Amino acid sequence: MKKINVGILGATGAVGREILKVLEQRDFPVGKIFLFASEKEVGTLLHFKGKPIAVVAAGKDAFSRCDVVFGAVDSAIAKMYAKEIVSCGAIFIDNSSAFRCEKDVPLVVPEINAGDIFTHKGIISNPNCSTIITLVALNAINKLSTITQIYACTYQAVSGAGAAGLCELREQMEAKICKKSPKSSVFEEQILENVLPKIGEFTENGFTDEEMKMQNEGRKILHNDELLVNCTCVRVPVERSHSIAVSVRTNDKLDLQQVKSALKAEKGVVFVETPAYPTPLKSSFLDDVFVGRLRKDPVDEKGLTLWCCGDQLRKGAATNAVQIAELLFGREE
Amino acid sequence: MKKINVGILGATGAVGREILKVLEQRDFPVGKIFLFASEKEVGTLLHFKGKPIAVVAAGKDAFSRCDVVFGAVDSAIAKMYAKEIVSCGAIFIDNSSAFRCEKDVPLVVPEINAGDIFTHKGIISNPNCSTIITLVALNAINKLSTITQIYACTYQAVSGAGAAGLCELREQMEAKICKKSPKSSVFEEQILENVLPKIGEFTENGFTDEEMKMQNEGRKILHNDELLVNCTCVRVPVERSHSIAVSVRTNDKLDLQQVKSALKAEKGVVFVETPAYPTPLKSSFLDDVFVGRLRKDPVDEKGLTLWCCGDQLRKGAATNAVQIAELLFGREE
Repeated sequence: MKKINVGILGATGAVGREILKVLEQRDFPVGKIFLFASEKEVGTLLHFKGKPIAVVAAGKDAFSRCDVVFGAVDSAIAKMYAKEIVSCGAIFIDNSSAFRCEKDVPLVVPEINAGDIFTHKGIISNPNCSTIITLVALNAINKLSTITQIYACTYQAVSGAGAAGLCELREQMEAKICKKSPKSSVFEEQILENVLPKIGEFTENGFTDEEMKMQNEGRKILHNDELLVNCTCVRVPVERSHSIAVSVRTNDKLDLQQVKSALKAEKGVVFVETPAYPTPLKSSFLDDVFVGRLRKDPVDEKGLTLWCCGDQLRKGAATNAVQIAELLFGREE
Repeated sequence: MKKINVGILGATGAVGREILKVLEQRDFPVGKIFLFASEKEVGTLLHFKGKPIAVVAAGKDAFSRCDVVFGAVDSAIAKMYAKEIVSCGAIFIDNSSAFRCEKDVPLVVPEINAGDIFTHKGIISNPNCSTIITLVALNAINKLSTITQIYACTYQAVSGAGAAGLCELREQMEAKICKKSPKSSVFEEQILENVLPKIGEFTENGFTDEEMKMQNEGRKILHNDELLVNCTCVRVPVERSHSIAVSVRTNDKLDLQQVKSALKAEKGVVFVETPAYPTPLKSSFLDDVFVGRLRKDPVDEKGLTLWCCGDQLRKGAATNAVQIAELLFGREE
């Protein structure tokens, strides 16, 4: 595989830093590397393979020297730079939700719909973190029999709100121990010793945009426009890994042993046999999605219930994006 | 209402102490009060209406001077003393799961099935904490149209594991801030910055006994033997209040505005209109169940989804038990 010149837009954020780590750990064939961040961070030093690299300003000159730019910024900033990146000839692998539902933009979880990558017109979107983790957990089941509906409740880590979310949880913990009153700015209310059933903004149907992503993105990734999802997204005081309690209905009644075997054989999944169970702590800093608590749904004879955990900065963001790049350039060699 | 002589079995635990507080706050007509705990705690002073009261040993002499004994101990200890309490002529209102599913024992949430109280043969059971909170939230809907199935995911506070659970969370927080490694003994794994998808013990069908309580107890409380419940119970690093994300199917298709009005009018419920939402912190130390995030279920035209929070030491345990006693003695006057 030839050397690839890589840019990271938003390199100093939680996802940006994780992409840098994942590129190093997976030994991605990096040629030149460009770390982009906001103007006030220009000059900040990050490290790649032991070498210090200074953050530079985003712009045409640098973009035109990149083969690929990873986006680790919010939707507004992703939209601001996407056209320029593509017009400079680089491929934009974007973590934001800006382009996920656009027709010409592949939305890819490599274990599920790797083939979609090659229909890109310059932009490839990384799905929402909870969606990636849930769908990787469900992929083996969906291959046995099409999943028609999903009930999901999430337990989402503060890292989903970026480095600032991680800081706020830590600061609130310190305040509590010092008997000061914890301050909230990243989250609407105190997240320490609390859970918040609102991530993103409310839409007309009473669900948040975060909750609707699992259905909207799930349909595109699974190539199933009929998929129905009822999701409740909840922020919990956990650092890195998201957990999701999921019940699915499949077209056919499945045998539990067959599902277990399929999950054990599934790439990217670690199946955890009851009485053991996955937790966010045990899945943190790892790339696999941990799936456990598999059982028949007592409400629905075509139903299955499970619990899954995955590091949202890794498989939920950075790792998935780098995997897309690996497929992209591996194939084009 | 005449003065009632009250015993609390397990008075020094988290629920026992809360019962003492609730009796005082609700101005229950307490005559004599007997605080029972394990032998090593005999002599410990607790306070009731400003007066110190010493813990005494449980036994026939004291039981025979009680009109009612509240049980705030585990099932094994509840079983050990129940017969003796009843044979001494006192009524045993038990918080443990020991007798909940026995035929002659009413299982009561006063807002739902107060009438069942008066069929008692000496023992009345207080339901499981998550079951109480969820069913109070669902009662208004069930009255509009029978609920036939429930999908529930819980976010349960550490106080569910008693005073020791509260201590362990606090100690793990202090350890983390001091950069020591947090120790676990009450919970199987670290609960700080983690969530644990196992409460109680696993049963044959892959659900835990805690998860099966919502169906088993729900059927008895709602007088609906056909009720189907799929529940995932998860411990979260929250101090007092449990939260539950619930989706229900009702016999009829309900109108959302009608459901809202019914919830607003429901006793024991505070309805929270979106974009506001209930949280465990905001419902802590209060007796009401907070219900919000009400929306139509996109998966099921007869379905509704909501989010509820309630203090599990109050309505989930102590308050519900004292309410039962109020009904019991109010009527017998």
